[in-house]
Amino acid sequence: MFIIKIGGGKDIKISAIAKEVANIQASGERVIIVHGASVLRDQIAEQLNHPTKTVISPSGVSSVYTDKKAMDIFLMAYPGLSNSRIVQEFLSAGVQAIGLSGVDGKIWHAKQKKNLYVQEGKKTKLLTDNLTGKVYEVNCALVKLLLENKYVPIISSPAYADNGEIVNVDNDIATAKMAISCKAKKLIYLFEAPGLLHNLDDPSSTISVIRKSEIDSYTHVAQGRMKKKLLAVKEALDGGIEDIIFADGRTAKPLEQAMSQNGTTFIND
Amino acid sequence: MFIIKIGGGKDIKISAIAKEVANIQASGERVIIVHGASVLRDQIAEQLNHPTKTVISPSGVSSVYTDKKAMDIFLMAYPGLSNSRIVQEFLSAGVQAIGLSGVDGKIWHAKQKKNLYVQEGKKTKLLTDNLTGKVYEVNCALVKLLLENKYVPIISSPAYADNGEIVNVDNDIATAKMAISCKAKKLIYLFEAPGLLHNLDDPSSTISVIRKSEIDSYTHVAQGRMKKKLLAVKEALDGGIEDIIFADGRTAKPLEQAMSQNGTTFIND
Repeated sequence: MFIIKIGGGKDIKISAIAKEVANIQASGERVIIVHGASVLRDQIAEQLNHPTKTVISPSGVSSVYTDKKAMDIFLMAYPGLSNSRIVQEFLSAGVQAIGLSGVDGKIWHAKQKKNLYVQEGKKTKLLTDNLTGKVYEVNCALVKLLLENKYVPIISSPAYADNGEIVNVDNDIATAKMAISCKAKKLIYLFEAPGLLHNLDDPSSTISVIRKSEIDSYTHVAQGRMKKKLLAVKEALDGGIEDIIFADGRTAKPLEQAMSQNGTTFIND
Repeated sequence: MFIIKIGGGKDIKISAIAKEVANIQASGERVIIVHGASVLRDQIAEQLNHPTKTVISPSGVSSVYTDKKAMDIFLMAYPGLSNSRIVQEFLSAGVQAIGLSGVDGKIWHAKQKKNLYVQEGKKTKLLTDNLTGKVYEVNCALVKLLLENKYVPIISSPAYADNGEIVNVDNDIATAKMAISCKAKKLIYLFEAPGLLHNLDDPSSTISVIRKSEIDSYTHVAQGRMKKKLLAVKEALDGGIEDIIFADGRTAKPLEQAMSQNGTTFIND
C-alpha cells in the first residue's frame, strides 16, 4: 500500500499524478491519496470576508484559528470544491476514485484541543472555541474495504472528534498516522519544492538522504509547513514506516521522480 | 433497503431523522440517504457575487443554468458544507455515515446535456456550456458494498458525466433511478410540506393516496419542485418501486410520520 500526500499548492500537477496512480494500480499496488487545499481555502475565505486567521502561541509557534465560520469555509474548500475536482481528475485518468473527508465513517477520529493560548502584543489570551484537534484513531477497515474492491480513496481534512465536533487536523501528521495504522509500505509527500532544501533559494540544494537520527539537525533548514512535515516523518519512522520520500509535485511525472530518488528520502538508522 | 431523500430546506430536522435512521438500521434494515442543499447553495452564490441563475425554456419550463463558477459553488455547498454537516449529525446519532457525491466512484453516471434553449424576451438563445445532465447508470455495487458493511451512504448531487465533466443532475430523479437500479423496498421523500397538497395554502389538504394512473391529474396542484418530484415518482413506479411516500421533514419524527401514512402514499394501479 502506497500513501501519497499531495500538497494544496496551485502548481501541483494533479492530472499527471492521477495518470501515474492509474499505472501503479494496474501493477497491483494499492494507493491512498491525501490532499491539502490551503491555498483554495484562503481564497474562498477572502471572498467571503472571513480571512484565515493565524495566531501566535506564547512560544512563538503560529497556527490557524478555526472558529465555526472558518470551519464552514474549510468544508466548502477541502471536502467540497478541492476534493471533488481531484476526484474528477482521477476518474478521468481511469482510476475508480472515491472522495472522502476524515469525517466520513470516522476515518480520522480525533480529540478536540479547544484551548489555544495566543500571544497578542504583550498579552496572553486563552481562546476556548478553537475547532482543531489531533487524530488518534484511523478507520483502516473502511480504507481497506475500498482498496480491496479496487477503489482509490482520496481523503482530506477535517476529522471527526469524539465530542461530536468537526475539527481541523494537520493533514501531514494525520497522513503519517494513517500510514502507521494501515501499515503502508511507502509514504510519499508531494509539494511545491524538489525536496527538503539546504538553502530555500537554491532548488539544486536538495538533501537526498536523511537518517532518522539526523532529522533534528535539519529542523533549522525547514521553514513553515516543512517543520510539520519533518514531525510527521519522525512519527512515521517511529511507527515502522521504512520508505518515506519528499518530492516535487510540479513535474511531468512526480511519482516516477519521487521513486527514482529525485527528492529527499528518509531512512531509519 | 430504504432510500430516503431529504430536501434542502432550512427547517428539515436532520438530527431527528438521523436518530430514526439509527433505529431503522438497528432493526436490520439498510438505509441510503440522498439530500439537497439548494437553499445553502443559493446563499453561498449570493455571498460570492455569482447568484444562481434561473433560465426559462421556450416552452416555459424554468431551470438552473450552471456555468463553471456556478458548479464550483455547487461543489462547495452540496458535497462540501451541507454533506459534511449532515454526516456529522448522523455520526453523532450513532450511524456510521459516509458522505459521497454522485461523482465518487461514479455512483451517479450521467450524460451531459450541453445545449439549453433559453427564452429572453422575444428572442430564443442557445447556451452550449450548461453543466447539467441526466443520470443513466448507478454504481449499486459500491452502494451495496458500504451497506453490507453497516455504513449508511449519504449522497448528493452532482454526478460524473461520461465526457469527464461534473454535472448538476436532478436529485429527485436521480434518487428514483437509484431506487430502481439498487432495488429499494421503500422510497421516502421528506420536504417542507406535509405531503402533496390539494391547496398549497392549506396544510390540512394533504392528498393521502395517489394511484399511478392518477398522477397526471395531480400535476396541476404540484408547484415548482413538486412537479419534478411527481416525475420522479412516475419513473420509480414504472421501475417497480411499490412503496413511495412524500412526508414532512419538519416534525419531531419525520420517518415515523411517513411510515404511518401521515403524508402522501403512491401506489401502483
